[in-house]
Amino acid sequence: MTLPAGPERLARSALTCIAEPGDPAMGALLRICAPAEIVAALTENRMPSPAAPGPGGIAGLDRALRRWSARLGEVPPEPALDAWRREGIRLVIPGDAEWPGQLDVLGDAGPWGLWVAGNADLRYACLRSVSVVGTRAATAYGAHVCTEMSAVLAERGWSIISGGAYGVDGCAHRAALAAAGVTIAVLPGGVDQAYPPGHHGLFRAVHERGATVSEWPPGRNPTRHGFLVRNRVIAALSRGTVVVEAALRSGALSTARHARDQGRPLMAVPGPVTSAQSAGCHEIIRDWGGICVTNAGDVMDLLALPGDEPTGRPPVPVLPRDQLDSVMSQVLDAVPARVGRGPARIAVAAGVDFDTVMSCLGALAAGGFVERCAQGWRMRRHKQAVGGS
Amino acid sequence: MTLPAGPERLARSALTCIAEPGDPAMGALLRICAPAEIVAALTENRMPSPAAPGPGGIAGLDRALRRWSARLGEVPPEPALDAWRREGIRLVIPGDAEWPGQLDVLGDAGPWGLWVAGNADLRYACLRSVSVVGTRAATAYGAHVCTEMSAVLAERGWSIISGGAYGVDGCAHRAALAAAGVTIAVLPGGVDQAYPPGHHGLFRAVHERGATVSEWPPGRNPTRHGFLVRNRVIAALSRGTVVVEAALRSGALSTARHARDQGRPLMAVPGPVTSAQSAGCHEIIRDWGGICVTNAGDVMDLLALPGDEPTGRPPVPVLPRDQLDSVMSQVLDAVPARVGRGPARIAVAAGVDFDTVMSCLGALAAGGFVERCAQGWRMRRHKQAVGGS
Repeated sequence: MTLPAGPERLARSALTCIAEPGDPAMGALLRICAPAEIVAALTENRMPSPAAPGPGGIAGLDRALRRWSARLGEVPPEPALDAWRREGIRLVIPGDAEWPGQLDVLGDAGPWGLWVAGNADLRYACLRSVSVVGTRAATAYGAHVCTEMSAVLAERGWSIISGGAYGVDGCAHRAALAAAGVTIAVLPGGVDQAYPPGHHGLFRAVHERGATVSEWPPGRNPTRHGFLVRNRVIAALSRGTVVVEAALRSGALSTARHARDQGRPLMAVPGPVTSAQSAGCHEIIRDWGGICVTNAGDVMDLLALPGDEPTGRPPVPVLPRDQLDSVMSQVLDAVPARVGRGPARIAVAAGVDFDTVMSCLGALAAGGFVERCAQGWRMRRHKQAVGGS
Repeated sequence: MTLPAGPERLARSALTCIAEPGDPAMGALLRICAPAEIVAALTENRMPSPAAPGPGGIAGLDRALRRWSARLGEVPPEPALDAWRREGIRLVIPGDAEWPGQLDVLGDAGPWGLWVAGNADLRYACLRSVSVVGTRAATAYGAHVCTEMSAVLAERGWSIISGGAYGVDGCAHRAALAAAGVTIAVLPGGVDQAYPPGHHGLFRAVHERGATVSEWPPGRNPTRHGFLVRNRVIAALSRGTVVVEAALRSGALSTARHARDQGRPLMAVPGPVTSAQSAGCHEIIRDWGGICVTNAGDVMDLLALPGDEPTGRPPVPVLPRDQLDSVMSQVLDAVPARVGRGPARIAVAAGVDFDTVMSCLGALAAGGFVERCAQGWRMRRHKQAVGGS
């Protein structure tokens, strides 16, 4: 199968190769230029239109253009993109049905695109999600509390977002999988680069029921800077962030700081005051306005919205099926009830092109009609709607 | 020695025998009647003047008067009062130099008087104090944290106030004593009734460097109701309350509730979320607006006032010695520099009566000139005043 890449998608895939995530000059430029124009201008060694240099223009744009031009060689040729597609790696970009709207909180600092591997629909998975993060040097206490909390949240239909690291992150992902839940690992390098390498098997399991996500293209190794930049995405993807264990200078505090600065609920699990690995959590509670949470129930109480079903399942479709437009309706008719079917086969059955089928499936998933599974896409079964309280 | 009891002191000692602490009818009556008039009226079986019955009067006053009259037999004869004095038990009443002004926060529900045993000047001891309370069923973790925190606070010149119970309370008192600090036990029965009995030796040690305090007269056993009523005094005596460990229905939460309702800083020590004995602390932090404290430094940061010396010692006397009035000055001259002297001997040396010497010593202690010690009273030695910031 080949995924036809529109010019915007192709251009954004190039941007992920040439500009570091969070680069403020690129963020400012994207506000006024289309991604394809930026790539074209870099290739043709000219100023992107309508960006003007000098006063009133984008600070440091000249230097940034030189920096990006120097990395044009890292933009892979189309065959490489095809190979990534065949490996199951897709690029999700703003405007896609699968793009998680809550990333808007990042403004100019948002990702140019997200490389995604795995069966979960990213937007759908993040609708009801919690970021669970903490120290690599988790204690037995931290591992126990993280596992218990994440498993209950996952059982109740909350996706667990974390950073894929050893310690607390790994416990969170594993607990979600053990509870047959959905989990998303936001990686500091390419989604084909298992980092840490010891989590290669874990990420394979994550792909079955969730996804790994990265702002960096496949093949890219993590950098020290990348870890910190990545943390803003961990915080932005979810409704709120829980820090399970963190020493006073732990990297998990950077994720916590992003959650706070983004105005998202920030929570921390207390622990023994005699444990250095709980000192960061206590600081969050005492000095940062973080909320003390002791179990999954506390987290759900804080993050649940009125529309959330008490069973933990997302609401039944808001739109009645007979009000879907005809293309949506054709695609929905082509989705099997139980065993999943790949998007290419759904496109053929529905008689629409691949881009259209991907966009429709995303919208149908966000609407609660369909869901991803290991084999592709299938209908979501709904319990009876539960009356409000 | 005999302590001449003024009519107000005598009447208030009677009130502590006939009206339960916190009795709202007594609180209301004391706003309009002198204690001696209340006792006289009860003895003569008439309405205390100017209290009027009926609408606009004190709710339930008739029933209250009958209730109090029925307990007139419990008022001890003067020889019993003398015997208590000889045992070192004094009654401290509003207006005394030793009366802790912060009890005013209790309003009508304040004590009619406080029976005190021990060498500490109550007012002076409570000026810079913290209430440290918690469960009787302290874990090893709670005992450790309580001991560490209380010892450091006591070393830094903070008096430790608690309820004298097993568990956290006992750890707090013992740690203060071990750090050569001052500690006050607010008991739910008479100060001569060691409750719990196993703390008889602890209370003897408390008397050396601190005091036991009760709203009930000597000889009275604690009642279930008494424990809860007593907790408002534990909270009111100090600048703030720390709950070290408490299960969800622990009595320590009643002290915490009083601190919160009194507008005093309420603090709690977090612990493992897996420990039932920390669940009450987490509830205080999460739902009651309590502050998460992890060590003595956190507590001092919250409670310290600008006037507090960083060394932990109270400020040097505010009034220069040569501005004391002549009676104060005579009494001060009669206080020895190092080895303590009893108040009766100081009275003789100063040529003033006993009531006057007690009142002067209280004021001199509050002013930082003198201090109680095991042998009576002595001069306080002052470090050089420490410059601001």
